[in-house]
Amino acid sequence: MATAHVFIATSLDGFIARPDGDIDWLLQRDDANEDHGYADFIADKDLIVMGRGTYEKMLTLGPWTYDRPVLVLSKQLADAAVPEALQGKVRFSGSAPREVMDTLARQNVRRVYVDGGQLVQSFLRDGLVADMVITTVPVLLGSGRRLFGALSRDIDWTLLSSRSFPSGLVQSSYRQVP
Amino acid sequence: MATAHVFIATSLDGFIARPDGDIDWLLQRDDANEDHGYADFIADKDLIVMGRGTYEKMLTLGPWTYDRPVLVLSKQLADAAVPEALQGKVRFSGSAPREVMDTLARQNVRRVYVDGGQLVQSFLRDGLVADMVITTVPVLLGSGRRLFGALSRDIDWTLLSSRSFPSGLVQSSYRQVP
Repeated sequence: MATAHVFIATSLDGFIARPDGDIDWLLQRDDANEDHGYADFIADKDLIVMGRGTYEKMLTLGPWTYDRPVLVLSKQLADAAVPEALQGKVRFSGSAPREVMDTLARQNVRRVYVDGGQLVQSFLRDGLVADMVITTVPVLLGSGRRLFGALSRDIDWTLLSSRSFPSGLVQSSYRQVP
Repeated sequence: MATAHVFIATSLDGFIARPDGDIDWLLQRDDANEDHGYADFIADKDLIVMGRGTYEKMLTLGPWTYDRPVLVLSKQLADAAVPEALQGKVRFSGSAPREVMDTLARQNVRRVYVDGGQLVQSFLRDGLVADMVITTVPVLLGSGRRLFGALSRDIDWTLLSSRSFPSGLVQSSYRQVP
């Protein structure tokens, strides 16, 4: 079985980006002297899945920095060719989250990092997220793209740990209650 | 000058109540063995302001338990008589938040607890909230009444402290950056 894991930052009011996708408010508050644990988090992940929105945003941010294989879930990109510079690093798939996780398990992929708001919402709706590390940035934006979306039922979590940083970030780790 | 202070609980996805106002999900997770600090919070507050929604909800929850004067901000109730059982404990006002705070300051009220989602949003929009204690409950509801609403500008906060409880609540205190 493959498990899905979330590591994401949000504003105090639950936005991961402004309405136009802008994340400058987040980057400006990212204190390079603080270790927010991404390296530890990614160390035991085999693969990253992301949606088209996140993929296209990452393309605009300069050189590809992911050191894990990336699977982009997008019906629109499913039949497209991967750009030459990203071959061997990126694959496209048009499958739904549950199907993707089953396929990955057969490929011996065990731990998957789910990146990007829309995709996190899809994985949550399907009950596929094993745990989440949520980092809350001390700013209210008032509008934007939400981390969490509609659900057909409550989802309960066990708090694993919580810590805060001098910059004002609060980072809490949750495991889904089965 | 009077200052406004928020002490409120929210689901992980930012809801203070379900769409119909139900807060059973919150009450069920309130561990009576844990001191979440309300008594300490309220100790130095002179008065509580709440909106009509919160006031009417409180009326349904049994005997009036607030041990501070309560001012209900509601255009609809402004000219209504206060129920006999609540006279001396509750007043109604149809004024807007800033006007209310100015009036309270002239009455020598110094520290005001702002309760209820809609009213917290109004006070935030008007830049009136000095600090907030936000307690995050480890459950995703998927829908409901939001703690935070639209804003005309970002609001930055300084994290004062953060702590977690065995029940899984994470409580963070923020002061507004002037």
